[in-house]
Amino acid sequence: MDGWARITTEDLTELKLIVGEDHLRSDEESRHEYGHDETEDLVHPPDVVVFPASVDEVSSILKFANERSIPVTAIGARTGLSGGALSTHGGIALSMKRFDSIIQIDERNFQATVEPGVINQVFHHACKAEGLFYPPDPSSWGSCTLGGNLAYNAGGPKAVKYGVTNQYVLNLEVVLASGEVIWTGANVLKNSTGYNLTQLMVGSEGTLGIITKVVFKLLPYPKEDLTLLVPFSSAENACAAVSAIFHEGVTPAGMEFMERDAIDWTLKYVDDVQVPTGEDIEAHLLIELDGNDADVLFKDAEVIATVVEKFGAGEVLIADNQAQRDALWKLRRRVGEAVKSHSIYKEEDTVVPRAELPVLLKGVKDIGAKYGFKSVCYGHAGDGNLHVNIVKGEMTDEAWNTELPKGIREIFELVKGLGGTISGEHGIGYVQKDYLDIVFNDANLAAQKAIKKALDPKGILNPGKIFPGS
Amino acid sequence: MDGWARITTEDLTELKLIVGEDHLRSDEESRHEYGHDETEDLVHPPDVVVFPASVDEVSSILKFANERSIPVTAIGARTGLSGGALSTHGGIALSMKRFDSIIQIDERNFQATVEPGVINQVFHHACKAEGLFYPPDPSSWGSCTLGGNLAYNAGGPKAVKYGVTNQYVLNLEVVLASGEVIWTGANVLKNSTGYNLTQLMVGSEGTLGIITKVVFKLLPYPKEDLTLLVPFSSAENACAAVSAIFHEGVTPAGMEFMERDAIDWTLKYVDDVQVPTGEDIEAHLLIELDGNDADVLFKDAEVIATVVEKFGAGEVLIADNQAQRDALWKLRRRVGEAVKSHSIYKEEDTVVPRAELPVLLKGVKDIGAKYGFKSVCYGHAGDGNLHVNIVKGEMTDEAWNTELPKGIREIFELVKGLGGTISGEHGIGYVQKDYLDIVFNDANLAAQKAIKKALDPKGILNPGKIFPGS
Repeated sequence: MDGWARITTEDLTELKLIVGEDHLRSDEESRHEYGHDETEDLVHPPDVVVFPASVDEVSSILKFANERSIPVTAIGARTGLSGGALSTHGGIALSMKRFDSIIQIDERNFQATVEPGVINQVFHHACKAEGLFYPPDPSSWGSCTLGGNLAYNAGGPKAVKYGVTNQYVLNLEVVLASGEVIWTGANVLKNSTGYNLTQLMVGSEGTLGIITKVVFKLLPYPKEDLTLLVPFSSAENACAAVSAIFHEGVTPAGMEFMERDAIDWTLKYVDDVQVPTGEDIEAHLLIELDGNDADVLFKDAEVIATVVEKFGAGEVLIADNQAQRDALWKLRRRVGEAVKSHSIYKEEDTVVPRAELPVLLKGVKDIGAKYGFKSVCYGHAGDGNLHVNIVKGEMTDEAWNTELPKGIREIFELVKGLGGTISGEHGIGYVQKDYLDIVFNDANLAAQKAIKKALDPKGILNPGKIFPGS
Repeated sequence: MDGWARITTEDLTELKLIVGEDHLRSDEESRHEYGHDETEDLVHPPDVVVFPASVDEVSSILKFANERSIPVTAIGARTGLSGGALSTHGGIALSMKRFDSIIQIDERNFQATVEPGVINQVFHHACKAEGLFYPPDPSSWGSCTLGGNLAYNAGGPKAVKYGVTNQYVLNLEVVLASGEVIWTGANVLKNSTGYNLTQLMVGSEGTLGIITKVVFKLLPYPKEDLTLLVPFSSAENACAAVSAIFHEGVTPAGMEFMERDAIDWTLKYVDDVQVPTGEDIEAHLLIELDGNDADVLFKDAEVIATVVEKFGAGEVLIADNQAQRDALWKLRRRVGEAVKSHSIYKEEDTVVPRAELPVLLKGVKDIGAKYGFKSVCYGHAGDGNLHVNIVKGEMTDEAWNTELPKGIREIFELVKGLGGTISGEHGIGYVQKDYLDIVFNDANLAAQKAIKKALDPKGILNPGKIFPGS
C-alpha cells in the first residue's frame, strides 16, 4: 500500500471520539456503498466512512490521519465520472453530506455562503427564489453536490455563456492536510492579493485540501429564455454550425450537440418526450437563449435560423412553453444514463477549441473504425466539449482491454494536436491519470507534483488520483 | 543580500553570450531607468538589464541565474503601482519589451496567441479590427503590457461586467526558475485536467515563473454603447446607488466613482473636458452600458435614471457622441496622474463587496481624520474597488512616516472586516507586503510560501515581493 496505513480498531475508536458513534460506519455494506461512484463498474471500498458536521471535526480527522499516514478521500454524492471518489488506497472516506447548509444568500452583494454538501439544484433554486442566478448545472444537478462540482470544476450546459464552476468561486474555507484551516481569498469580485489558492483548490479533486465552506458570486436571474431544437442531416455539419452561430455575434446560454444514436437510445429510456426523428436526421443541436428582453431573444433566434439553414438544417423547433422546454432538457440530461444503460461503456470527456469540433468528431469515428469500437457522441458543443461514449457492444473482452486503450490514446493525441485537452469537466481522477503525459510535459508534471508535496507532504489526500502511476 | 549573488563581470560576459551584446545594459542611466515603476518615488536599480527575444533566451538566462542564485525581476512597461518591478535585491532586470508580437488572432475560435510585451491598447485594437473584444483595460492601457497585466491580474473599468485579466487567460507558456519551459493548460474554454497552474501564475507577480506566451479567450465586440455621467450631492449616496442599480437587473459595462476632489484636480490637469461642477456636487458616477441592441441600452439607462433619482442625483448627462464619450473616459483615466501630480502621495487599492462601499468610504474619511491625513477616493465602484489616494499635503514628515502606516493598517482592517481585501488590481508587490498578515492567517501564508519554495527553491524570481519581511 505504498507506505499508507490501514485503519485499525484503535483508529476507529479515535475517529468515533471525533465524529460521534452515530457518524461512523465500517460495515461491509457501507464500505461497498461508499466504494463506488458513477464511473464504469469500479468499486474501491474505504476502510471506514465518517460523516463529520463541522470544520473542527474535519480538522481533527485530518490531523489524526496525517499523523498516522492514513489516506483520506472526500466524498460528495458519488456522481463523478472519473473515479475521483474511489478509495483506491483504502483509508477514510470523508463524506461531506452533513455539510448541507445554505448559510447565507446575500442579495445585496449577489453572493452566497454555502456548505459543500448542498445539492446543486437545491442551491440553484434557493438563489432563484431571491432573483439570483447560479449558472453551473451539470447533468447530474439533481443529485450532485457543490463540493463535488468544486473538486472537478464542473460545467454543464450553461457554461458556454456563463462559464464553469470556478468562475463563481470567490473564497473557500479549506482544511489542509495538516488539519490547519485557511480561507483562500476574500468575498470580492477582483483580487490581486497573493497567490490564487482559490483557483488552485478548485479542480484539484480533493488532493490539496478539504473544502468546508464556499463563497459564490451570483448573477441576476435572467428574465426570459427560449429553447430551440435544430435537426441536421450530417453530424459534422451540426458541429460546423456551432462555430458559425457564435461568429454572428449570438452567444447562446446553451448549445448542446446530440448524435442520432444518443437521441434514439434516450427516447427508449424516457417515454414522455417527443422529438423529430426522421430517417435523414443524423444529429440535433439543442440551443437555449436567455436574457432580460424577449424581443432580443427572438431576433437572435432568427439569426440562428438563418445560419443553420446554410448548414443544411431541417425545420427549427421552438419550445414555446415551459413543458416543452423541460422535456427537451430532460432528454439532453438523460443521454448519459441512457447510453450507459445499453452496454458496458467508457466515457471520454474531450474538449477542443470549438471550431475544431467537426475535425474531432470525424477523428473519433475514424479511430473507432481502426480499432473496432463504436461511439456515441454528445455534449457541450458551444464549449468544444464532446463526450465520447464508447460502448462495448459486440467487442471481445480482449479487444476491449488491449485495443481500446490504444484507440483512446489516439483520440487524446488528436485532441492535444487540436489545442485541446483530455477532460473538460469530469476530471482526471482514477481512470484518466495514465493519459496525462499526452497533455503535460515532464516539467509541468513535476511542478504539479511539487505543489502536491508542498501542501500534503505525506500524500494522505485522495492518493491514486490525477498523477500517472500514482 | 540574504544569500543572493550580485552580478560580476564574468556574469555580464555570460549574459551577453545569451542575449547578444546589443541587448544588455549595465550603465548607470539604464539601471536607474529600470529601477523604478509608477510606485511613489521608489528606486531600486538592478545590476543589469537584459532584453531577451525568445523563450530559449529566457530559459538560458533563468538556468544561469538559478545556478548562480542571482535574483531575476521580470519587467514590463513599469506602470505598476505596488513596486512589483523594483529590483529590491539587485540582480537581473528581465525586460520583456522585445516580446511584442501578436502571434495569431484566431477569429474562428475567438482566441488570440500573444507575447507578453504587447501593449494592452494595441492588443485591444487588433482584436477589435477582427470584430473581437479583449475587455481588460486598466487606466494605463496605452502604455502597460499584457505581461504586467497578467502578473498583477489587472482589472480596469470594464471588469464589473466582463471580469478581470484572469478570466481571459486560457493557457500560458512559462519558463520556470530552473529554466524548464511548460504550457500551463490548453486552448479551451473549460478544463478539468490537473491543477490550475494557469490561474496560479496569473497574479503571482513574477515570483513563480516568467510568462513568454499567452493564449487569451476573446468575446464578440459589442455593437453599441452608451455613457452616462451622474452627479450626486453626497459621495456616500453615490456609492449606495451603485448597489441599487445592479439590484434592478442592470449590469453596466463600467461603473466608476469619482469624488469631488478627484474631478476638480483632474479638470486642472486635462483642459479639454467639461463636466458639471456645481457647488452642491460631491461625487460623480460614470456609467457605461454596452450590448448589441441600442434600444435595450436606452431602456437600461432609463432604469438607472429612476434609481439614481432616489439617491438624490442631479441631472443625468448622456454622452451621445464618441467625442463626449472619449472626453469623459479621458477624465476618468487621468484621475490617478492628476491627484499624484498634486502632492507626495500613497495609493491604496481597497476592495470590498460592493454594497459595503458606503461604509468603506465613510471609514476611510473617519480614519483619515483620526490620524490627520486627507484622501481622494475614486475607482471601480461596480466591483467594490475603491482607490484611496492619500496626499501628504501639509502633513509633517514624522506624521507621514509614523502615523500614516497605522492609519493604513486601520483602513485595511476595516476592509478585511467587510469581507474585502487589500488589493483589487494593483498587487501586493513591495509596498503592501507587510500588511498581508491582516488578510491571511499563518497557515495560509505558510501554504503560499511552500508553493513558492516548491517552484523556485532558491528564491531567485522577484525576491522581496508579496511575502511579509521578504
